[in-house]
Amino acid sequence: MKAIPFTKVSINDRFWSPRLKTNSERTIPHELEQCRITGRISNFAKAAGLIDGNFEGIFFNDSDVHKLVEAASYTLHTHPNPDWEEDLDEVIDTIAKSQQQDGYLNSYFTLVEPEKKWQNLGMMHELYCAGHLFEAGVAHYQATGKEKLLDVACRFADLIDNTFGPGKRDGLPGHQGIELALVKLARTTGEDRYMSLSDYFVKTRGQAPHVFEKELENPDLPGGLGAYKHHYTRDDKYEGTYSQAHLPLVEQTECVGHAVRGMYLYAGAADIANETGDSEIMNALQTLWQNMEKRFYITGGVGPSGHNEGFTQDYELPNFSAYAETCASIGLIFWAHRMFLLKGESGYMDVLETALYNGALSGVSLDGTGFFYQNPLASRGGRERSPWFGCACCPPNIARLLGSLGEYIYAQSNDDIWVNLYVGGSVSTTLSSDVSLKLSQETEYPWSGEVKITVNPEKSTSFELNLRIPGWCKNHSIGINGKQYENSVSSNGYLSINRQWNPGDIVELKLDMPVDRVYAHPNVRDNLGRSALQRGPLLYCFEDIDNTEGAFETLSLIGDAHFDIEYNPEFLNGVTLLKGAGSIYDVSEWENQLYITKPSQKKIDITAIPYYAWSNRGSGQMAVWVL
Amino acid sequence: MKAIPFTKVSINDRFWSPRLKTNSERTIPHELEQCRITGRISNFAKAAGLIDGNFEGIFFNDSDVHKLVEAASYTLHTHPNPDWEEDLDEVIDTIAKSQQQDGYLNSYFTLVEPEKKWQNLGMMHELYCAGHLFEAGVAHYQATGKEKLLDVACRFADLIDNTFGPGKRDGLPGHQGIELALVKLARTTGEDRYMSLSDYFVKTRGQAPHVFEKELENPDLPGGLGAYKHHYTRDDKYEGTYSQAHLPLVEQTECVGHAVRGMYLYAGAADIANETGDSEIMNALQTLWQNMEKRFYITGGVGPSGHNEGFTQDYELPNFSAYAETCASIGLIFWAHRMFLLKGESGYMDVLETALYNGALSGVSLDGTGFFYQNPLASRGGRERSPWFGCACCPPNIARLLGSLGEYIYAQSNDDIWVNLYVGGSVSTTLSSDVSLKLSQETEYPWSGEVKITVNPEKSTSFELNLRIPGWCKNHSIGINGKQYENSVSSNGYLSINRQWNPGDIVELKLDMPVDRVYAHPNVRDNLGRSALQRGPLLYCFEDIDNTEGAFETLSLIGDAHFDIEYNPEFLNGVTLLKGAGSIYDVSEWENQLYITKPSQKKIDITAIPYYAWSNRGSGQMAVWVL
Repeated sequence: MKAIPFTKVSINDRFWSPRLKTNSERTIPHELEQCRITGRISNFAKAAGLIDGNFEGIFFNDSDVHKLVEAASYTLHTHPNPDWEEDLDEVIDTIAKSQQQDGYLNSYFTLVEPEKKWQNLGMMHELYCAGHLFEAGVAHYQATGKEKLLDVACRFADLIDNTFGPGKRDGLPGHQGIELALVKLARTTGEDRYMSLSDYFVKTRGQAPHVFEKELENPDLPGGLGAYKHHYTRDDKYEGTYSQAHLPLVEQTECVGHAVRGMYLYAGAADIANETGDSEIMNALQTLWQNMEKRFYITGGVGPSGHNEGFTQDYELPNFSAYAETCASIGLIFWAHRMFLLKGESGYMDVLETALYNGALSGVSLDGTGFFYQNPLASRGGRERSPWFGCACCPPNIARLLGSLGEYIYAQSNDDIWVNLYVGGSVSTTLSSDVSLKLSQETEYPWSGEVKITVNPEKSTSFELNLRIPGWCKNHSIGINGKQYENSVSSNGYLSINRQWNPGDIVELKLDMPVDRVYAHPNVRDNLGRSALQRGPLLYCFEDIDNTEGAFETLSLIGDAHFDIEYNPEFLNGVTLLKGAGSIYDVSEWENQLYITKPSQKKIDITAIPYYAWSNRGSGQMAVWVL
Repeated sequence: MKAIPFTKVSINDRFWSPRLKTNSERTIPHELEQCRITGRISNFAKAAGLIDGNFEGIFFNDSDVHKLVEAASYTLHTHPNPDWEEDLDEVIDTIAKSQQQDGYLNSYFTLVEPEKKWQNLGMMHELYCAGHLFEAGVAHYQATGKEKLLDVACRFADLIDNTFGPGKRDGLPGHQGIELALVKLARTTGEDRYMSLSDYFVKTRGQAPHVFEKELENPDLPGGLGAYKHHYTRDDKYEGTYSQAHLPLVEQTECVGHAVRGMYLYAGAADIANETGDSEIMNALQTLWQNMEKRFYITGGVGPSGHNEGFTQDYELPNFSAYAETCASIGLIFWAHRMFLLKGESGYMDVLETALYNGALSGVSLDGTGFFYQNPLASRGGRERSPWFGCACCPPNIARLLGSLGEYIYAQSNDDIWVNLYVGGSVSTTLSSDVSLKLSQETEYPWSGEVKITVNPEKSTSFELNLRIPGWCKNHSIGINGKQYENSVSSNGYLSINRQWNPGDIVELKLDMPVDRVYAHPNVRDNLGRSALQRGPLLYCFEDIDNTEGAFETLSLIGDAHFDIEYNPEFLNGVTLLKGAGSIYDVSEWENQLYITKPSQKKIDITAIPYYAWSNRGSGQMAVWVL
């Protein structure tokens, strides 16, 4: 099964189109400007010898620019914007000029430690930055047909391939990402060497002798030993869990370490499993996925701890201190997408949809210029999105996710068409019989569960249309050309319609979308006695600005209280609010006492907003899980 | 106002007498044996030159023996036990023989660092150990009239008084305790110098230049610098909060640092305020008390953190990790008692009663030979009382508290008699007119709120009888000689009966004792959405052994569910159980899912036991605050 690429998809959706427009008109120019003023772009110009000056910022800052080029490239397809198209070309030009004679491209090492390339793979992110360059090159080529950046990527990939691998040097990325990037590069160019190199990186990771441990014998390590602190245990022994290099992937059973690195590795490994059919990797990934399912937030956030930016243990999911990095949710989307492509099961798309609408989308403000690095599930106030970060991985990551949204909506295997996300717009593809097919969706999703799909094969033809029935949906119905269609959902979570389709056939899907109260597993200590509101794919939360009576932290739902849904087109760029009865205590009941016997719980009207929209009206208190 | 001393009180009480009997028959011999086998007693013999050998154990181990001697002395009065009386005399003898020519008495310094006395007051506990010796000397004298240990105490106190103070050396105890001990010694001997020395220790604490900071200039500090770690801030600056030496007491407004040290200091300062009428100290203590009231557990435990064995910040009262050292609850009892004697307000006795029946009493097992150092308010299992500790402050501390229980029941100021605790037994005292008075109580307290008090002046006489109406009691009634007595509780929380009393007058007090659900201030994060059960002075808790259906951590009380009380004389040495309806979830509802929408909450019968009795039937899960 293959995703139908973003180039074949157009989006015309009440929920997403405004976000993609904002991404193009606000986010991308804002991030280009940030990359400019923080020296990220001029680092390339300096490395190219175009201007004089020292390297500025963090050693992996190149990757932010690469990701932004990738984001802008996708966006050229969906929402081109003349304001920055020339800038993009200029940035690409500068990156290209910074490439060294031998193909090497990394402004930090070129400018700062040119003699120390490839000596500290464990921490200095050369291969990680390379991966982002490859993704940018592929995206720019896909979106525009221009080969300039793709060529740059290939020249660098060739150098890396000539340097590392069996019979050459041992080498691995300390921060993963290059694995999935090489697969993209291989698929785009048809060059098998890139696929083999990715396969090498996936399979040799965690094997003894440890590449990263061996590097430490170098007394003159670029970046210095301090950068390694996360790779050590408390008793100062090298230990690879931080970057998932403690064991070969096929022996790993738990999601550990830095969450983004983990997600990128698992996603790349899933690509390799998809290409090679390697069942050991496939099984390992399924085991890891099952473990992830004990370690993810209801937002689709992963990696609860700021200490390692990553995983801790099963069920340890604190709300206030949740790290849940935006990049980790995006990485989870990458992994989930590839697991779906491997297995064809809707459960993976459920997680993808959760992360997309909640934990990832919360990473960017409604106006497109503020970003969360961390996405907590509760706040005592003071949590605001920032315009940028010193370590700025998240802003361009959310921009490229939004730019590439089209990639996640449809998939195809032979003549089976899979509709995974309900997003207004259309897709064009070709069936094996060479019959071209256009599908279009009209929907108010996620505010409504009604989806109208128009099926337009160029001529009457037979194929299977698989509609994803989301895990949150308990009841649905379907009509074809106005007639009720008897159906049952198959074990993979899809409703399959195998018939002779005629141009203009109309499928009407109705997904029941009640307000649900969700309860976390009792092992999640922070959520004991609490529940959260969810409707469709959207998680809701409460902000104190909407719920001002009494002590916000005592806000409680009432037994079986009904929640009304209320769409407000003016509010938070248009959201469906949940309104119902709750209760709350007043701190004044306690006066100066710590313990009292009969506080009166006041019944109040309470309002919940979608989680992704929180902290867009000041930085007050917020709670997902309420009493 | 003065406490009527334990020597004037006899206890004959269904609740307490068996505990005091166990204290005498099990706890004291057990602890004597522990002191013996851990070398604590032989350290004195070695210091005395009676036997050869090195000092064993921790440098402040003397204090454990002193406290045990104090405990045994009280017990000689209430429950003498021929099994250990001779042992006690022998221990006292050995202690006495270890006293040096000049009065110095500390087996660690005598044996290990004889040249380094008084050089590390900040950490090496010489003055702390001295204080416990003084308390032992006073108690033994009060209980037996024997002056041997009192004389030893005085000789040492004289040495300390000749060494430290105005015009002599600057000196302060790193671990407080000697302040209240010197007051006891002064009151017992009539020697004002001891009172002045206590006053000096209280008032110079926290003044610049810092005694403890100056000590650090010594490169050859006994105990070494490591012992000072708690006295430093993260940036390695000396800072006195750990031992409440950061500011003069009169400028302190928050309970900080090591909780036991704080309690002992505040108790000693209250003694000094009582003796001197110093209003600045009195005001400071009231401010500190008000702050303590934002930092105490519902058990009467203080000091939530194991890191500093002490205070953190207002409302930070985690349940599972609660440190709440047994000694700190005992120290709170000391402080509360003295605050009552200063102010005559029942609120202080409310806190004393809470700590006594809950946070302190939980420190010893029902069989008298197991001890908690920490008293958490929730457990995931595995928390068991130990027979002893390397740092064994708590076991003899609880033994001396129980031994001296009589001291806390009654107080007298001129002809006003105060009944503070409802404990069966009697008290003898003399009124200012030289009329002798005997009061006796009959009660099933704390299982019942009915108390019959027989008033027996030697002849008809007028005085005021003040009965404490506990803070937990919302309704009460009172009868005198069978007739309803109209009364109102005065603002200090006492019901005052001012009348002509005749021999054999009978006062019948009925305190309504319903089962109450208590709610913590919403700022106590761990208790949000939770409540605790309390009846009379007793806090209740749930143990999984009594509540086995479903996932214990999801145990919930139901709205206004009624709880039946059920006295069971066979169970846990006789307790009143609370039985009512609750609800619980089954983990199997979640199968392999982290988040589900409709778990079914099972209605079940639930049983609560008094908190003090937990962990006497294995070490399962426990919760005070339930959903």
